[in-house]
Amino acid sequence: MSTIYFDHNSTTALKPQVLQAMLPWLTETTGNATSRHVYGRNARDAVEAARKQIAACVGVQASQVVFTSGGTEANNFAVKGIAANLTPTQLLVSAIEHPCVSRPAQSLAWHNWQVQTIRVDAQGVIDLADAEQKLNIRTGLVSAMLANNETGAIQPIAELAAVAKAHGAFLHTDAVQAFGKLAVDFNALGVSAMTISSHKIGGPVGVGALILDKRVDIAPLLHGGGQERGLRSGTENVVGIVGFAEACKLAVETLKTRGETQSRLRKQLEVGLHTLGATLFGQQANRLPNTSFFAIPNIEGETLVTALDKAGFAVASGSACSSDSTEPSHVLLAMGVEPDLARGAVRVSVSDTNTEAEIQGFLKALQQEVKRLKGLSAVAA
Amino acid sequence: MSTIYFDHNSTTALKPQVLQAMLPWLTETTGNATSRHVYGRNARDAVEAARKQIAACVGVQASQVVFTSGGTEANNFAVKGIAANLTPTQLLVSAIEHPCVSRPAQSLAWHNWQVQTIRVDAQGVIDLADAEQKLNIRTGLVSAMLANNETGAIQPIAELAAVAKAHGAFLHTDAVQAFGKLAVDFNALGVSAMTISSHKIGGPVGVGALILDKRVDIAPLLHGGGQERGLRSGTENVVGIVGFAEACKLAVETLKTRGETQSRLRKQLEVGLHTLGATLFGQQANRLPNTSFFAIPNIEGETLVTALDKAGFAVASGSACSSDSTEPSHVLLAMGVEPDLARGAVRVSVSDTNTEAEIQGFLKALQQEVKRLKGLSAVAA
Ligand SMILES: Cc1ncc(COP(=O)(O)O)c(C=O)c1O
Ligand SMILES: Cc1ncc(COP(=O)(O)O)c(C=O)c1O
Repeated sequence: MSTIYFDHNSTTALKPQVLQAMLPWLTETTGNATSRHVYGRNARDAVEAARKQIAACVGVQASQVVFTSGGTEANNFAVKGIAANLTPTQLLVSAIEHPCVSRPAQSLAWHNWQVQTIRVDAQGVIDLADAEQKLNIRTGLVSAMLANNETGAIQPIAELAAVAKAHGAFLHTDAVQAFGKLAVDFNALGVSAMTISSHKIGGPVGVGALILDKRVDIAPLLHGGGQERGLRSGTENVVGIVGFAEACKLAVETLKTRGETQSRLRKQLEVGLHTLGATLFGQQANRLPNTSFFAIPNIEGETLVTALDKAGFAVASGSACSSDSTEPSHVLLAMGVEPDLARGAVRVSVSDTNTEAEIQGFLKALQQEVKRLKGLSAVAA
Repeated sequence: MSTIYFDHNSTTALKPQVLQAMLPWLTETTGNATSRHVYGRNARDAVEAARKQIAACVGVQASQVVFTSGGTEANNFAVKGIAANLTPTQLLVSAIEHPCVSRPAQSLAWHNWQVQTIRVDAQGVIDLADAEQKLNIRTGLVSAMLANNETGAIQPIAELAAVAKAHGAFLHTDAVQAFGKLAVDFNALGVSAMTISSHKIGGPVGVGALILDKRVDIAPLLHGGGQERGLRSGTENVVGIVGFAEACKLAVETLKTRGETQSRLRKQLEVGLHTLGATLFGQQANRLPNTSFFAIPNIEGETLVTALDKAGFAVASGSACSSDSTEPSHVLLAMGVEPDLARGAVRVSVSDTNTEAEIQGFLKALQQEVKRLKGLSAVAA
């Protein structure tokens, strides 16, 4: 397909080396990892080798990795599973969480939890003073993401974890967007639980993991055969887990060079965006090297995404995972962006496989579309 | 690998045609099915075509299919999700359910449900009279499998569904083992919800579905981006769903010939087992064409499985999905089998890709191992 893909925060292609690692598990007879025969033992060995590899990528022991079907399940598992073993008190989530954190949190309001939101500043960064103040009320669990999927803003999670710990609360962090784009060390962050997802880093979709501090007592979400030491039942997705591990390894190995390429592309993009009069969201924040979230005043994001798609560029409007909705982004509203401007939001998220020529082509197309759409609205007015 | 695989109820190899259907989604840039650009629309189209195909395979409309990460999640979703929207009353499960039905059911006892068990007869078939009698107490939900994973015994689900309906209860059936081995028509069964799983029918692991009657009001287990019409959040596993649909299509198309081959192999196997003095469990029951569950008196199942593995045959002891446990099979105990005999249980589950020569080789190896192990135990005595 000739359309240029600039939506890598939404999902990104499987890396060729990952497919190579997966192929034996797609072409040969493979066992169930709970079976005791040779096929089962081979499957078990592959799962445990993958667990070790992933653990090493985030600086933990293999026994701290629980495989899930993806980021959404890991976030649901973390929030509901940790809360299930605590006396209901206050549950704090940041105002910019992905719905797969905020909605499970909301669902706990039915189970006597007091759900409160931590504010973010105008750059989309968590307000630590607000968190600290809210932690004066007894709090069992805090969930706050490591980097935001829309703005790319990196959050002060180590600082928040320290404050949470001082107040006796567990901190879960959704590192789905950060992992693979930043160096992520579980212990350096000092968190109690952390979510990662395979398809965001060049691994297969349908697999993810929750990384757990050993002191966390978590209840399973899925009951059954007792896989993952009873914490997540269901036949292990061996091929998916193998691919995930390979993707983690590659992501960590190539982190620096990819980051440099992405930063360069983003800089080129953002210089061009300014020239076109775009407003860049979270521009002053420390951001993921690949993410730009912007609006052209008076042009709807949806309209622009559709026009750019026709012009050969795949970008996102609002949040990838809930783009069925046309509400302005909750992240931008939390940052105090006016709803009218927020409705113009467009996200470009690049990969190191994108090129400067592609960015140049994109800026040209954007300029044309903006001109055309402004012309249309001038006619309509 | 030279070991003959006779554990197809546990998991079975990906069919080559399924891999062919999946490959484009593993090698090209693929979008997130919620994205609005061309990559997203292509992904959405593939998911919806797959949904239609799977729906046709079980005789329902596409809108009745909710994709999950597998059979375990679909069973948890059915039991917990249907119960969540009902006033707690009695919950009936058969005595031979897979732990991914019985354990979620047990977990509802904490939510004021009265969990009761439906008896099975000596052949491992649900006792309809017992169910009918228990349904005299107000019951919200019944869950009973369509075919048992250990014995292969096919259950009178249409009859049970009629009785449940007459008493105002929903019936969920776990069709994970039946689907692909029997013709399964959702409406002919008259059930309210039905679980199927991809990796049991030659599709990829990590994907399954819950089929729902439109009158069932079910609560989601995973909250988030609102995928699957809000019933199951999480980035859709496009490649997995595409593979699952292809596997369903193939399974239905080849049902008759595969069934005939499997029946022939099973007959050959069971004639040989009788000669060796084996006890066949559920022998008089109407069974899946590919499953034999047996014991050689005075030989531990675990020991036999290990010996057969060394001899080049991969078979299972007890239930595939929880074979970490050495407890005798709960299915056999529910059938009234003596624990000592139950501990001897071994399951052979064939595929139409197995051959008569393989069965012959297996019977020869079994005879040798039985002789050797009996010799050992005679010496030990
Ligand atoms: C920040 C964040 N968390 C969680 C998720 C969900 O992960 P998954 O797609 O693996 O369910 C996403 C994207 O989908 C995300 O961007
Ligand atoms: C009867 C039955 N139900 C459910 C399952 C679980 O399905 P899955 O492996 O897709 O989680 C299995 C086997 O694992 C099974 O045999």
